[in-house]
Amino acid sequence: MKFGGTSVGDVERIRRVARIVAHERKPGRGLAVIVSAMAGETDRLVKLAREAGGDTHNRPGIAGKNFDDEYDVVVSTGEQVTTGLLSLALRQLGVPARSWQNWQIPIRSDASHSRARVDTIDSEKLGAAIDAGEVAVIPGFQAVTADDRITTLGRGGSDTSAVAVAAAIKAERCDIYTDVDGVYTTDPRITQRARRLEKIAYEEMLEMASLGAKVLLTRSVELAMAQRVPVRVLSSFVEPGDPNPGTIVCGEEEIVEKQVVSGVAYSRDEAKVSLLGVEDHPGVAADIFGRLADAEVNVDMIVQSQARHEGRQNMVFTCPDRDAPRAKQALEAAQKEIGYEDLQIHRDVAKVSVIGIGMRSQVGVAKTMFAALAGKGINIQAIATSEIKISVLIDAQYTELAVRALHTAYGLDAV
Amino acid sequence: MKFGGTSVGDVERIRRVARIVAHERKPGRGLAVIVSAMAGETDRLVKLAREAGGDTHNRPGIAGKNFDDEYDVVVSTGEQVTTGLLSLALRQLGVPARSWQNWQIPIRSDASHSRARVDTIDSEKLGAAIDAGEVAVIPGFQAVTADDRITTLGRGGSDTSAVAVAAAIKAERCDIYTDVDGVYTTDPRITQRARRLEKIAYEEMLEMASLGAKVLLTRSVELAMAQRVPVRVLSSFVEPGDPNPGTIVCGEEEIVEKQVVSGVAYSRDEAKVSLLGVEDHPGVAADIFGRLADAEVNVDMIVQSQARHEGRQNMVFTCPDRDAPRAKQALEAAQKEIGYEDLQIHRDVAKVSVIGIGMRSQVGVAKTMFAALAGKGINIQAIATSEIKISVLIDAQYTELAVRALHTAYGLDAV
Repeated sequence: MKFGGTSVGDVERIRRVARIVAHERKPGRGLAVIVSAMAGETDRLVKLAREAGGDTHNRPGIAGKNFDDEYDVVVSTGEQVTTGLLSLALRQLGVPARSWQNWQIPIRSDASHSRARVDTIDSEKLGAAIDAGEVAVIPGFQAVTADDRITTLGRGGSDTSAVAVAAAIKAERCDIYTDVDGVYTTDPRITQRARRLEKIAYEEMLEMASLGAKVLLTRSVELAMAQRVPVRVLSSFVEPGDPNPGTIVCGEEEIVEKQVVSGVAYSRDEAKVSLLGVEDHPGVAADIFGRLADAEVNVDMIVQSQARHEGRQNMVFTCPDRDAPRAKQALEAAQKEIGYEDLQIHRDVAKVSVIGIGMRSQVGVAKTMFAALAGKGINIQAIATSEIKISVLIDAQYTELAVRALHTAYGLDAV
Repeated sequence: MKFGGTSVGDVERIRRVARIVAHERKPGRGLAVIVSAMAGETDRLVKLAREAGGDTHNRPGIAGKNFDDEYDVVVSTGEQVTTGLLSLALRQLGVPARSWQNWQIPIRSDASHSRARVDTIDSEKLGAAIDAGEVAVIPGFQAVTADDRITTLGRGGSDTSAVAVAAAIKAERCDIYTDVDGVYTTDPRITQRARRLEKIAYEEMLEMASLGAKVLLTRSVELAMAQRVPVRVLSSFVEPGDPNPGTIVCGEEEIVEKQVVSGVAYSRDEAKVSLLGVEDHPGVAADIFGRLADAEVNVDMIVQSQARHEGRQNMVFTCPDRDAPRAKQALEAAQKEIGYEDLQIHRDVAKVSVIGIGMRSQVGVAKTMFAALAGKGINIQAIATSEIKISVLIDAQYTELAVRALHTAYGLDAV
């Protein structure tokens, strides 16, 4: 079981979490609980560390790394506090419980402070305690290096910790309690017809996560998929015993009735970069995208087309909106070397995607999408496809209209 | 070097501490720095733990102990945060530094959670890092058990941690930076003629600590004396380089010019308990003081005298004022068994003491004291002596008058 920052935001909420844990505890069922820092606590600690040591993040090169180890020492205390408090609250309910700090288990990671990756978890002592009926309460988002220094895992690290612990103790399931009650066919703020999915495949969840669905972050889903740990996303804002089925993220073999499309996702944080009149010679694409990679620009869709002038082409790509200034700088600095006529950046674009493992065995999925958008008069500026996803780039003002049209077109609307 | 909670109360103060540490760092001189939690932080954490688990302290028996381990998990994070922040601030100044959590060293204690005692410190890795020129920043007030659980040491634990680390790494000296600039001949609030002592013997410091002088707590002085670690008490509210000699607490063999009396201490938190007309039979004293010990009453001075009635005596003793209600209850409940006529408790008394290792080789010290008090018309209600201390019990309203008279009588006044 994993509870995030808002779920343990104050002592009253920690007490509710304790009641939920106590309710899930049954004879023969051992429990490990991974917790985040109380909401706001990590921000407070980050602020203190930055005041004391300067801004340790986004600091280039060695200097930043030289500070991140102590940054982790400061920031990791937030989760430790929650483990103690939840253990106390569980004991108040008569449930045997104890906190397990990462060094006590140990949970080992590499030494990439503030963005470490979990390597190994020694499940021996931990597993024995859980088998003996004691609830194990473990701080998420952190680990220790082979050298016994404290690391943190970076954003969303607590979910990754939960999945890693679940895999290590061979848990039946990893329940991620959060502020939503499951994964939806699309953002319920856009259409009331959005439905909670009973099950979703790892691959689908990965595509949704990479499109900005904030329910589970990419890394935790990748790990769950690699380790074949079923993950259930469910609400932490219920009283124990209330219906709370959530959504199970699992292997596609577990999903009997496969939908062609399981969900419609969108992202407004996109920018479209157009390089017009690029000299058409071998290696020019490698040159352009090599420079963008060096500038840490995350390129997504790419469209190549013939330009007005003979021997020249247009090269259009998308990237996250926050990368656009870096893309502009890198490309402008190399205008001569690359050899292009004009550079245009549009930041009022959105990416809308349909996702479904059923696509693999189904033809005509793209046709349905294009027809639905054409029916609403929405122009498609770029297309990208993967085995289980079709994405289109459109004018941002049509985002909601497009999402609703696709949700209906693929038969996802709640009845 | 040890810095308490007010010395590291915010990031600005932590930066000043970093400057002081940087200034003390010299070629060939290794430094370990023990830090407390930022002022207010421990209280905040204790409050959270009590909200989550109920009041874990002063809870009788097993129930309390069953909560104290997780209480320690929560509370110990306060010092960990300071170690990270100070390490960051030191590196900002270009000083190589790292935090050492207790489990990383390790510093081991017994398993008496929330009041543990340090057993052993493994100085191998720590000493090597210090010898290599890296400042070691260590959280005070805590340790880990043989079983790798986190403990805290109880009140004043950071001083004890500092002395223990100093002993383990065979430090030349343990500097305790605090909010006063040294140990004084008496409380400067009572007389402006109080002088900072250059040196004071461990034994004298112990007597002063037990009398409520808050500069150093008894346990840290006991440990320093046992391990022969010279301790310097000095101010943390100076800029580096400012004169800050402090007071050195050391073995008496280090003190060349021994004063007969080094200091005058006082305590107003006293109660006088008078048992009048106690039946005079063998074992009655053992019975009375056994009952008081069972009620956890800390008995200090004892005066026995003949009562009005034949075969009866009066038994007068003092105890800390907070123990007086328990003493009353225990004695009233046993009036028949003990056999006494009346019980009186006076809480408006004070204990004034003169302390000095020079007393051992000097006669007439008590006479000077009694004469000085008589000269001011102050009546002595009880007397207690040790090898290096004479204490008298007086009416509380004469406390300041008595302290000033004794300070002058023993030649302690600043010129």
